Amino acid sequence: MRIEGKEYRTIWFENNVVKIIDQTKLPHQFIIKELRTVDDAINAIKIMEVRGAPLIGGTAAYGLTLAVQENNDPEFIKKSAKELIQSRPTAINLKWAVDRMIKKLAGINSKQILSIALNEAKEICDEDEKFCENIGINGLKIIEKIYNKKKDTVNILTHCNAGWLATINWGTATSPIYHAHKKGIPVHVWVDETRPRNQGANLTSYELNEEEVPNTIIADNTGGILMQRGEVDMCIVGTDRTLSNGDVCNKIGTYLKALAAYDNNVPFYVALPSSTIDWEIKDSKEIPIEERNSEELSHVEGVDQNNQVKKVLIYPYKSKAMNLAFDVTPAKYVTGLITEKGTCEASTQGLKDLFK
Amino acid sequence: MRIEGKEYRTIWFENNVVKIIDQTKLPHQFIIKELRTVDDAINAIKIMEVRGAPLIGGTAAYGLTLAVQENNDPEFIKKSAKELIQSRPTAINLKWAVDRMIKKLAGINSKQILSIALNEAKEICDEDEKFCENIGINGLKIIEKIYNKKKDTVNILTHCNAGWLATINWGTATSPIYHAHKKGIPVHVWVDETRPRNQGANLTSYELNEEEVPNTIIADNTGGILMQRGEVDMCIVGTDRTLSNGDVCNKIGTYLKALAAYDNNVPFYVALPSSTIDWEIKDSKEIPIEERNSEELSHVEGVDQNNQVKKVLIYPYKSKAMNLAFDVTPAKYVTGLITEKGTCEASTQGLKDLFK
Repeated sequence: MRIEGKEYRTIWFENNVVKIIDQTKLPHQFIIKELRTVDDAINAIKIMEVRGAPLIGGTAAYGLTLAVQENNDPEFIKKSAKELIQSRPTAINLKWAVDRMIKKLAGINSKQILSIALNEAKEICDEDEKFCENIGINGLKIIEKIYNKKKDTVNILTHCNAGWLATINWGTATSPIYHAHKKGIPVHVWVDETRPRNQGANLTSYELNEEEVPNTIIADNTGGILMQRGEVDMCIVGTDRTLSNGDVCNKIGTYLKALAAYDNNVPFYVALPSSTIDWEIKDSKEIPIEERNSEELSHVEGVDQNNQVKKVLIYPYKSKAMNLAFDVTPAKYVTGLITEKGTCEASTQGLKDLFK
Repeated sequence: MRIEGKEYRTIWFENNVVKIIDQTKLPHQFIIKELRTVDDAINAIKIMEVRGAPLIGGTAAYGLTLAVQENNDPEFIKKSAKELIQSRPTAINLKWAVDRMIKKLAGINSKQILSIALNEAKEICDEDEKFCENIGINGLKIIEKIYNKKKDTVNILTHCNAGWLATINWGTATSPIYHAHKKGIPVHVWVDETRPRNQGANLTSYELNEEEVPNTIIADNTGGILMQRGEVDMCIVGTDRTLSNGDVCNKIGTYLKALAAYDNNVPFYVALPSSTIDWEIKDSKEIPIEERNSEELSHVEGVDQNNQVKKVLIYPYKSKAMNLAFDVTPAKYVTGLITEKGTCEASTQGLKDLFK
């Protein structure tokens, strides 16, 4: 991942602190923030300084490492693990990463515990990076196929940010796009703005600009008519939790794009590392759907004409608003799941064949 | 229509000027603006100080009256008519109203022409008001039926603003809601924010607040999951142009909500006065879809903490954006058309039975 021409990762450990890119400040300010305690990590997840299922997992792993560094009493570590898991309800990677850390640290004595925690957190992150790279290699095949048939720019629609800012590197949905771009296949990305937090505009378009991939921001309302007009060749999105039956929980509004893709015979792919699969929940109705503060809707931040960051109220002052953060796309509307192991059908059988 | 407890219409003629409510200033400021020339009227339509298909028609009729008042030379009137029709491409009422005025004024001598133009413009507006009232009476029957079955608050989702601010009074989509509210049927409205111009939040929620109808603003992305959860009993939207086959052209994003409604067996109604029907175009691909300035996406206006209206750039400064204003919902996704003459199927036969 390149920002202003320099290579980064979204999270790293340096001089006893965890460093992150504060994503609430993007795209107007690029700020590297230090997390010194597990509470800093919990807060960063809660207020979405870090977001995206894989990066939330990585931050939780490093967060638990910070807990160990603060106080390696098993009770404190256990309490910290619980608080980390509760910091956001929908992304499954959070629980997955914390459980993996706890398992690794079980029965380790106090001398070694910090270095083991640190290694495991780094391994979780390295693994995610490798998985995202493989997702890119697997997804590239789909883009190549479309390009070989069309012999013209491949138009890809994406929703929210499942880019490198949502992972450790490469991204999930963007990884095939970056791989195609590096290979010289002409791609153009329709970036859904993704209200209310505008992660599409603020983060995905920002990323694509930095990587010099042509992209155009559109209102979330626009994807339908573009598909009707034949101006979208494929959709790729990420996911916060995919059930073993292929149902996909992702950023609110994903379901509407999947419906439009289905109605217009546009292939709709979901890119995910296997850490995002929930093998336990059988019914998507059981997925906890986070409801966030309605101020995320009613207030918007931007830069004014003096280049100052300003927050403004955009709604009538008497109005109330409701802010659900995720929805579920039934498996039948998903053309395929692009994973680190290959691409499969969004179904129980498809996932079983690939992972069991 | 009540604003701050006082009765209004959206457009009226007084002391040789046309008065409008400047809708680009709502909800933060309530400003009545005077249009003195036909160019003022053209500009008001272009920059959306007035918007909504029926109100655009009414403004065009009064605009032509201003042209007659300025200079009753037939060439000037003809040129003004042409410019008015070109001020916005998608709403069919614009052409309908101007054609009706021109037909009425044909061959009228200079002495009478102003008073005849004025009468005709007023009649177009009075007729629209009456039509909207009848739409309300017809749509009320549908809401009543749901209420009688559910015996609890009827949750209605609407997109954009097809309220009294889009018409002369009552609104189209909102008229059944206002009629139900006045009759004591408990209704609650899910108001789609409606990016990029946020007419749902800025205008529909504002209107509903003023009329004391319970309402909640949601991101345009949210309707799908609400329907999956059974939290929407029906959808009602307006339209800028309905084809004789029942295809509905309306604010961008309408199509996505219709798809979600269809997928979840939620009835999806379109409310319209017959002036919005295009009897000529047979294929929705021929409807001119307006592309507006991308600044409507990249810049947002609101009030800051000092209660000052501020405009801010919300996108990365390197990003480009694309702003299509309308989409088309195929007739098969529309449960019914609520018109001033009654409710019919969205089909050639349905419309023929009602209007021929």
